[in-house]
Amino acid sequence: MSEPEKSEDIPDESAGKGKGIPNGGNSAKSKEDYDLASIYVSDAQYNRNIYFDTSPQAVRLYLRYNHWIPQVLLFFFILVDLSLALFEEPAVVPLPSWATMLVELLCLLVFTIRLVHYAKVIPRDKFWKDPKNICIIVIVVLTLVDMIIYGALKATNCYGVRWSRVLRPLLLVNVTEGRQLRRAFRSIRNALPQIFYVFLLFMFSLLIFSLMALKLLGKRGLKTIDGAPYFTNYLEIVFDLYVLVTTANSPDVMMPAYNASFYFAIFFILYILINNYIFMSVFLAVVYNNYKKHLKEEIRQLVRAKRHKMVQAFAVLQEQREEGGEPVVSQADWNQIVRLVQPDISNAHRELLWSVSDNNNQGCIGKVAFVQLADLLNIEVITLKSRPHPLHGLCPALYLSAPSRLLCRLVQHRAFVIVYDLIILVNAVFIGLDETNPLIANSEWVFLALYLLEILMKLYVFEPRAFFSRHSFWNWFDTIIVISALIATIINATLTPSGNYTSRQILDIVFILRVLRLIRVVDSIKRFRTIINTLIRIGPAILTFGQLIIVVYYIFAMVGMELFKDKVKFYEDLSDPANLYCGNDQLKGTAFAQLNYCKNNFNNVVSSFILLVELTVVNQWHVLSSGFAAVTHKSARIFFVIFHIMVVIVIINIFVAFVLEAFFVEYSVEKSDLQTSLERKIEELELAVAQETLEDNLVNAMETIDNDQGTRQAANNKPALMFKIASKRYRTVDALLQRMFESDLDPEDFAENDDQTNFANPTFSSA
Amino acid sequence: MSEPEKSEDIPDESAGKGKGIPNGGNSAKSKEDYDLASIYVSDAQYNRNIYFDTSPQAVRLYLRYNHWIPQVLLFFFILVDLSLALFEEPAVVPLPSWATMLVELLCLLVFTIRLVHYAKVIPRDKFWKDPKNICIIVIVVLTLVDMIIYGALKATNCYGVRWSRVLRPLLLVNVTEGRQLRRAFRSIRNALPQIFYVFLLFMFSLLIFSLMALKLLGKRGLKTIDGAPYFTNYLEIVFDLYVLVTTANSPDVMMPAYNASFYFAIFFILYILINNYIFMSVFLAVVYNNYKKHLKEEIRQLVRAKRHKMVQAFAVLQEQREEGGEPVVSQADWNQIVRLVQPDISNAHRELLWSVSDNNNQGCIGKVAFVQLADLLNIEVITLKSRPHPLHGLCPALYLSAPSRLLCRLVQHRAFVIVYDLIILVNAVFIGLDETNPLIANSEWVFLALYLLEILMKLYVFEPRAFFSRHSFWNWFDTIIVISALIATIINATLTPSGNYTSRQILDIVFILRVLRLIRVVDSIKRFRTIINTLIRIGPAILTFGQLIIVVYYIFAMVGMELFKDKVKFYEDLSDPANLYCGNDQLKGTAFAQLNYCKNNFNNVVSSFILLVELTVVNQWHVLSSGFAAVTHKSARIFFVIFHIMVVIVIINIFVAFVLEAFFVEYSVEKSDLQTSLERKIEELELAVAQETLEDNLVNAMETIDNDQGTRQAANNKPALMFKIASKRYRTVDALLQRMFESDLDPEDFAENDDQTNFANPTFSSA
Repeated sequence: MSEPEKSEDIPDESAGKGKGIPNGGNSAKSKEDYDLASIYVSDAQYNRNIYFDTSPQAVRLYLRYNHWIPQVLLFFFILVDLSLALFEEPAVVPLPSWATMLVELLCLLVFTIRLVHYAKVIPRDKFWKDPKNICIIVIVVLTLVDMIIYGALKATNCYGVRWSRVLRPLLLVNVTEGRQLRRAFRSIRNALPQIFYVFLLFMFSLLIFSLMALKLLGKRGLKTIDGAPYFTNYLEIVFDLYVLVTTANSPDVMMPAYNASFYFAIFFILYILINNYIFMSVFLAVVYNNYKKHLKEEIRQLVRAKRHKMVQAFAVLQEQREEGGEPVVSQADWNQIVRLVQPDISNAHRELLWSVSDNNNQGCIGKVAFVQLADLLNIEVITLKSRPHPLHGLCPALYLSAPSRLLCRLVQHRAFVIVYDLIILVNAVFIGLDETNPLIANSEWVFLALYLLEILMKLYVFEPRAFFSRHSFWNWFDTIIVISALIATIINATLTPSGNYTSRQILDIVFILRVLRLIRVVDSIKRFRTIINTLIRIGPAILTFGQLIIVVYYIFAMVGMELFKDKVKFYEDLSDPANLYCGNDQLKGTAFAQLNYCKNNFNNVVSSFILLVELTVVNQWHVLSSGFAAVTHKSARIFFVIFHIMVVIVIINIFVAFVLEAFFVEYSVEKSDLQTSLERKIEELELAVAQETLEDNLVNAMETIDNDQGTRQAANNKPALMFKIASKRYRTVDALLQRMFESDLDPEDFAENDDQTNFANPTFSSA
Repeated sequence: MSEPEKSEDIPDESAGKGKGIPNGGNSAKSKEDYDLASIYVSDAQYNRNIYFDTSPQAVRLYLRYNHWIPQVLLFFFILVDLSLALFEEPAVVPLPSWATMLVELLCLLVFTIRLVHYAKVIPRDKFWKDPKNICIIVIVVLTLVDMIIYGALKATNCYGVRWSRVLRPLLLVNVTEGRQLRRAFRSIRNALPQIFYVFLLFMFSLLIFSLMALKLLGKRGLKTIDGAPYFTNYLEIVFDLYVLVTTANSPDVMMPAYNASFYFAIFFILYILINNYIFMSVFLAVVYNNYKKHLKEEIRQLVRAKRHKMVQAFAVLQEQREEGGEPVVSQADWNQIVRLVQPDISNAHRELLWSVSDNNNQGCIGKVAFVQLADLLNIEVITLKSRPHPLHGLCPALYLSAPSRLLCRLVQHRAFVIVYDLIILVNAVFIGLDETNPLIANSEWVFLALYLLEILMKLYVFEPRAFFSRHSFWNWFDTIIVISALIATIINATLTPSGNYTSRQILDIVFILRVLRLIRVVDSIKRFRTIINTLIRIGPAILTFGQLIIVVYYIFAMVGMELFKDKVKFYEDLSDPANLYCGNDQLKGTAFAQLNYCKNNFNNVVSSFILLVELTVVNQWHVLSSGFAAVTHKSARIFFVIFHIMVVIVIINIFVAFVLEAFFVEYSVEKSDLQTSLERKIEELELAVAQETLEDNLVNAMETIDNDQGTRQAANNKPALMFKIASKRYRTVDALLQRMFESDLDPEDFAENDDQTNFANPTFSSA
């Protein structure tokens, strides 16, 4: 890359640990310029694609728009809006409708304010072209209309339906922060046409098999187990065979035919083979293939947009060092920007990033190096400060005495971990035994004491701030669990003797905490840690799917509640005979009532959600759907079939596709180039943590960092400040996704963008 | 590519349509040389990895060993051996044990002969180093031992177990022809270590959740739906929660807790989320990842071995055209070899292949071009002979008359297809209606006549040999179905009035054929054809999985029959009260008997297989396993859990992984280089079928080739002989697999092998 070579006249800031440099060395740039540039960088870092206005006022508004407080407030009010379903008819906790409607009005007001804020930030024409803004406006207006109609109907004592409740979860999708969710929906939409054709073929096969079943089995006078005629109605056969694809009624649906002759079993086995194994695999293949293809394209565009924004930021900050030379950004400006974008970044970390960017120590960087900044900021670098132990400072003689050092060696020994793993195993056996035995009940105190001792010993040996660093997941986990268990056990012990009071809740908490303590064993086994860390890493992305599921569930729950509320009743008193038919005569004798499914109903939003989970798991969904069909109409099954197609065939397959892809990336992709250069720099500066922790294939060494720290402190011949790249952990889901397809991205992409955007620069530097 | 330039002295054979050239032009090579070379080429083509002896005698034996008759015989006797289970106790058709044992002895004899034959073909040390030979010997010896013991026990009226029956399916794996199956087993074995760790973690999670369930729910005095205490026994909880992972007892297992409080539902939802969705996806990811990785390595080695063999064949055939020049193979030798390897190849096809290899028309080819031969032979080239219609020859005046040509145009018109699709749809409706109505019963004749008319018209328009060519799947399908339906309907119609006789079987066949006729609609819709063709293409590979499943099923069936035979009885008379408890008092009141699962038993091999299919589908497997546990011992569940782990977690996941991978290949991979060069040649020679049929993305135009032939004949200005590459169809599964990973294979691989094998040539050319 053709960087300018002469830059000795620039003061080397990295020597001065640059604290609080007022607006950098260049007085030519105003605060507005820095604001603008920092917004570009921040947008690039978090992959925000907002074409905001570049006037100083809009920039200031935009900074406020991106502040975490309004964002958190917005999500809080969306949550409030969604949870209104708990208090509205049919309610878990009934509230008068004026109260819920007042709260909803407040929510709508908040959404409107947020939208108006957004409208002021971006140019008017962009605002009206964006479908998500239109969506929010439509949702707000429709909700208002619905509230007015409902209020009027209520006032005249008519029956009203709050139909706009279905729209609420769409807010989650359409707010600017719902980027991940929108992408997930887009990938579903993109896969739909392909899925549709496979689905048609699958339906064709289903209809053909049903026709054959009707002709082969309908006339034989066979009976199902409850004496009904078997396979005589075509539509019933289609439904039964559709259910068979979900395996929910296997092998029951086959038994009458199989009892008649085992040739018929061949029919069913063929059906299962084709429709269940082949077609379901094809669904997964099609979904996965589409998912991969479209995601790749999206990520490519994302990277383009990111680079474009960085080039814009560069255009704002650039200065000419020499006549005709390439424009550069000075270190002072760069520092200012990084501090604005990431106020909590440590000076050491910032200097490290600078030394990676300014590889030749010129005091300024060109466009190519500057564009990297967004990616560099996304690489999580853990700054490890090698402080002496506070006890060492307080009482060095004692802390460095022979017994104290022996203890340190003991705690750091591998055997210490093994001993505690054994203790945990013994503990597991004791938990499994009957706790009414006083010996076993008292053993709990011993175990608690042992666990406390472990934490105290570790705190004695390791520096407390390092022990409780942000990335020491297992240390936090341990301490919180043990201390909670201690508190809960003490409360329980003090309450139990005093007046025979036993709180079930506290006892439950004690039990849960005791069992959770056992999980720690996983961390001792490297192979397990590998898998767990991979799962934790794809966690944020799974959360996106969680949101998606909640959006879909919420819509189905709202519709389901309108269709089926109070049709199936559950009586808290289990001995109530009405529970035998769920308070609805039409359920008498059905499998639904026999299996005691009365609590699986749509009578409030919580029951609905649990019911929808059961439907997602699929088993017995034919019993559930037939139950609801019995109390309403046969066509009610359509609701359940649509739910099955949408959630099980489409969304769950996309989920599996995502997990597959994420796992392959975790298993195969090398660290990105940028990371490697960062790592090289860290090593070059001899600031790296012992290499073996980085080498740990797939294992994120962060969780076990305490061990290293110990050895390092003992050795005490390393610098006081060290860096480590949390190579496998990404700040944003986007970064993970970008990494997923990095290998496929055109390396020439940047150059291309560079050209495209060069001519666009003047308009943005006019501020 | 440093080919010798001078080769004008070689007679250009391609002009003479070279029929029956006696042993080529070079008298220097003996018949043995040709045999040896053709074996190398054939082994390379079919990816046989047999290090046979190169002595002329061994080569002759090896030729016989590879002949199709002994191979078919071998598989026939394996089939006989496997199907002996039908006749042995517990039998479907009981035969005296001396009869089955006699047949088994015969089978063993055949296997021994085959093995001895093999031993004579390959060097002795290679023979004894090959585990599959050892395996066969062990199986044969153990079976003999078992038969002797069993015979002795039988003679003394003791109870004997034919335990060696478990070994029978292993023959299928260990015969030399079981290459695909061995590979499938290898990919399972390779994935096992990785699966094992995930499985351990999964079991750990299961145990922790069970412990928590015991502590939270065990003391609450809850009851299951049949009044049993709920979640009080740790092992029972573990089993119940394991079943929940398979979703078979959802939501029943949760209902008692959920009825008590809906907080407990959270516990179960969390459990399902972690163990069902996350862990099962991880299993698939791990299996898929390992499958891909190891398969790639295997295919790489396969390609290496193939090239090595081609180089050996080249070494046998090579001759020096000029002093110091590169060795070459003359066209005569090449022709001889191709004719030996593939006797049914047409001369035109062979010449096409030669012109691809000898691109510069030199009359001889070098090593690089020769090595391609194995791949060239694997590319399926369809030779289309453009013959005039026989009627055209018989009576040209009539056939070329205006009405006749109008008919031709009509039949070839798109509307003709649409009209017949509509007829099929109307037919579908008529089939669905009640066939006792005489109007509808008679309509069947109309439809039959219409379908016959269609076939006759097509035969009139298209050349019959082209119409019934090997690749016209749908033409064959149509004709066979329609003619069978006609015959069956006539038989049915003649039998029915004469003496009120109605044969259910014939009627069933008529119904099946009628419904099957409807499938043809799929072919008219391009999108459907695409999917179907992809499925057909991965069909052979799916068959390998079918074999694998049969091996596993057979072993489980044999063990299951020994463990559970006659514990559960089914009485053909459905009204027999013993059916209410399956003839076993211990089943009284169990879900197994209540659901009427008596016919799901291990009383003979057919029932066992059907039961195992039901267990593979998973639903209700807890009822089935609990039923068998009730009649034997609780530990019987272990059998079912092991089956579930092996078949559902491992094999089905590998199956899904295979389908996924195959689909991606079909969707994405370009034609291989070699094919493209063959295609280029075909086009160059202006022998290609109209390009649009080749362009049909993903659609294999073969099935619709009739249309093209029609238009071509009408135009009549094309050469009489045309070629088309069946680009997407591969002769062997290996070829498909090689294509799957072709893009990842090192293109330098050949050169490397070339060097490796050059020094090995002399030893092989000693013959």
